[in-house]
Amino acid sequence: MSRLVVLRLGHRSTRDKRVTTHCGLVGRAFGADSMYYFGDKDETVENSIKKVVENWGGDFKVEWKQDPLQFINKWKREGGVCVHCTMYGVNINKMQGELRRMLSKKDIAIIIGASKVPLDIYKASDYNIAVGNQPHSEIAALAIVLDRIFKGKELVATFKDAKIKIIPKKEGKEVSRIEE
Amino acid sequence: MSRLVVLRLGHRSTRDKRVTTHCGLVGRAFGADSMYYFGDKDETVENSIKKVVENWGGDFKVEWKQDPLQFINKWKREGGVCVHCTMYGVNINKMQGELRRMLSKKDIAIIIGASKVPLDIYKASDYNIAVGNQPHSEIAALAIVLDRIFKGKELVATFKDAKIKIIPKKEGKEVSRIEE
Repeated sequence: MSRLVVLRLGHRSTRDKRVTTHCGLVGRAFGADSMYYFGDKDETVENSIKKVVENWGGDFKVEWKQDPLQFINKWKREGGVCVHCTMYGVNINKMQGELRRMLSKKDIAIIIGASKVPLDIYKASDYNIAVGNQPHSEIAALAIVLDRIFKGKELVATFKDAKIKIIPKKEGKEVSRIEE
Repeated sequence: MSRLVVLRLGHRSTRDKRVTTHCGLVGRAFGADSMYYFGDKDETVENSIKKVVENWGGDFKVEWKQDPLQFINKWKREGGVCVHCTMYGVNINKMQGELRRMLSKKDIAIIIGASKVPLDIYKASDYNIAVGNQPHSEIAALAIVLDRIFKGKELVATFKDAKIKIIPKKEGKEVSRIEE
């Protein structure tokens, strides 16, 4: 099975803490293996995501890296594919089949931006795909791309070593906790 | 055609500005008609969303309301259906067909929370649905529910009176602007 990672570009610790945290949690909940983020190093974000992994299971990783273009070029040299989510790209409706076939053969990095993404990233990416061509949210874009790739199966996955599990209910809340 | 609106509960102007703005933009871009939000009234959020509507078209509305439970009860009295997104609910994979059939007949309000959602809301909702039972993001949850209801057609919709339109491209950016 290939690896699927999220690259979060341009994190600003002054204003992106919650949005970047949501990106990490969506990555984990929707079947990615790791998130690498760029911009400001931010322990608040890292700790929020790590705490979720500790309680809810799995082995999703979050890690700060210095230079996105260097990371992308290395990823491609090692045979990986880079998919950049941008409102300027080709509609996901047309690309989802190809992304699925790709993941059966190659590692995939899904790139999402915070602040303005440099044109170099568009050029370095194998695919520039658009979750619609309207302004909305990188969190939503990431979720849709992963849901289209995994066809909803990601939403019923179980996470190993979880201390907390939810028992789905029509009304109210039911939680199963493993006491230590 | 029935109405579909987003109800954003518990907005805190101190910390939810960007997340609530993303919820509004996702609502607009993914085919909802309006977002009603509760909690703190926040002109920054309203103005960000209105500016997007002004430039990118359509007639998506954003409006603050005082009391969510009162709104929900009125919505139901007038024949509308309330769908609450919660990690404790029934998986969207099982519910999407029913939601689609519902929208062909009735108005739908999709409820997403910021801070902790009171149990009264679970009880007042016709459906408590989960976009997976893992913690992630109300922005992602909203996007997935709308994408499942509209089957991807929302991502190719056009918006009337748009001043800016994107021409989808494999690489780089192409924008068509209507000059005034």
